[in-house]
Amino acid sequence: MSIFFNKVTIIGVGLIGGSLARVLKTGNLAGGITGAGRSRETLDLALKLGVVDRIDQNSAAAVDNADLVVLASPVGAFLGIAREIGPRLKKGAIVTDVGSVKGELVKKIEEILPRGVHFVPGHPIAGKEKHGVAESNETLFKDTKCILTPTARTDPKAFEAVKSLWRVAGATVMLMDAEAHDHIFAAVSHLPHAAAYAMVNTVAEFSAGEENYINFSGAGFRDFTRIAASSPEMWRDICLLNGKNILEMIEQYQFALARIKKAIKHRDGAKLENLFSSASRIRKGLD
Amino acid sequence: MSIFFNKVTIIGVGLIGGSLARVLKTGNLAGGITGAGRSRETLDLALKLGVVDRIDQNSAAAVDNADLVVLASPVGAFLGIAREIGPRLKKGAIVTDVGSVKGELVKKIEEILPRGVHFVPGHPIAGKEKHGVAESNETLFKDTKCILTPTARTDPKAFEAVKSLWRVAGATVMLMDAEAHDHIFAAVSHLPHAAAYAMVNTVAEFSAGEENYINFSGAGFRDFTRIAASSPEMWRDICLLNGKNILEMIEQYQFALARIKKAIKHRDGAKLENLFSSASRIRKGLD
Repeated sequence: MSIFFNKVTIIGVGLIGGSLARVLKTGNLAGGITGAGRSRETLDLALKLGVVDRIDQNSAAAVDNADLVVLASPVGAFLGIAREIGPRLKKGAIVTDVGSVKGELVKKIEEILPRGVHFVPGHPIAGKEKHGVAESNETLFKDTKCILTPTARTDPKAFEAVKSLWRVAGATVMLMDAEAHDHIFAAVSHLPHAAAYAMVNTVAEFSAGEENYINFSGAGFRDFTRIAASSPEMWRDICLLNGKNILEMIEQYQFALARIKKAIKHRDGAKLENLFSSASRIRKGLD
Repeated sequence: MSIFFNKVTIIGVGLIGGSLARVLKTGNLAGGITGAGRSRETLDLALKLGVVDRIDQNSAAAVDNADLVVLASPVGAFLGIAREIGPRLKKGAIVTDVGSVKGELVKKIEEILPRGVHFVPGHPIAGKEKHGVAESNETLFKDTKCILTPTARTDPKAFEAVKSLWRVAGATVMLMDAEAHDHIFAAVSHLPHAAAYAMVNTVAEFSAGEENYINFSGAGFRDFTRIAASSPEMWRDICLLNGKNILEMIEQYQFALARIKKAIKHRDGAKLENLFSSASRIRKGLD
């Protein structure tokens, strides 16, 4: 399926939004791209970098006559934006998002957007610890997965268009139930982020004389905590929107830590080796 | 100080022991290097790769007439090896180690080794998730730190010799109290390893249909859990030998996780952003 959008509006021109804009530009998939969002500074930079053609701090005005609207701001802003842009969207417009949380959020967005507007919920599994439009790149999605979570309401043509866009970006598109998505990503993404933030905060509390313990950290610690450099605002939103699943996963994680603690307390070397071996084997399988 | 050892014996020719052997070879710092250890396969490979000149599965016989003996096996084996080699060490021999735990272990090794043998406790902050002699490289220690934890008993000349060796290897040598060392590394190294093992075990327990959740993991999860591919045997030993400190750190970590859990439960966005921002700021400072 060949795709072309006369006007695309990207709300939130950060790493993901900016990279998707670059994909649209490189592939000549858009007549024009408007960047919208709260931060004038970000928008000015996006314009200067040639990531977008026009900028507008008013999201509602920015979607006038848009064929495709991409919600790429922190997920916590999606509902407010949906309310804001809803009345201004043209009939037949496609709205998609790149949020790491689906489930309830998708249902609410569907309720807010007017009939005749087609919402296609998406989640590209891409990103890095460095954020912002300056880090955007049209190759960011190459050889990654993009998950789409269509609902009973999703328009098949709009769905195909969004699917094609992600394929052009280089991603493998996967379909998933929105609730299943949120449970899976609570485990493989949201929990590790919370755990990395907690790790940095734990170690930073200690110091020897004037030297913070963290200054003695090696490559392992740096790998482990790399994701703790991610956007705090984005992860705050994700924790609030997928709270139930994330709480479940943190609790499971606490159990796993407690098992290790117990084995250390009981000086149970066989048990420790067993716990570590299984993890080591599984982790090696991921490379 | 220029250094030369007529005969060096390395007990445990893995990533670290093998890399140190290569440093000795490249720098022409040894008349001959004998590799010792339990695994015939490892020793054969070390010999084949030219990392060592001679091999011997009997550690006691291997240290005959050695000027420098390096304990580079998993730390859990150090005491047994010290007992085994003690009676065979020549007067004036230097024994050093590369263990990640010092404290009590150092005291016990000092008690076991005979008078006239000089023990210099060391800990190079180097390594990677891939282990084994096949991964060894003479540049492994370049631009890293090597911590030495001399005691009241440490012979100054032996200490200078070991210090010189690590400098030739490219490491910056730091002096530290053995107890302080164990507390610091429980936080910056031992805790993250335990946490990474626990994370892999947590996520691996979940699957959607036939697909394990772990297959949906992205770059963040892979970074976070890279250290979980480390040697289970080595980390079992470290957990047993530095148990008290590691338990303290896991408990601190559990508090930090509980703080995040509480903020999620109370839907306290400001608190979450605050916890994440401080961690994010600190982590960015490490790059």
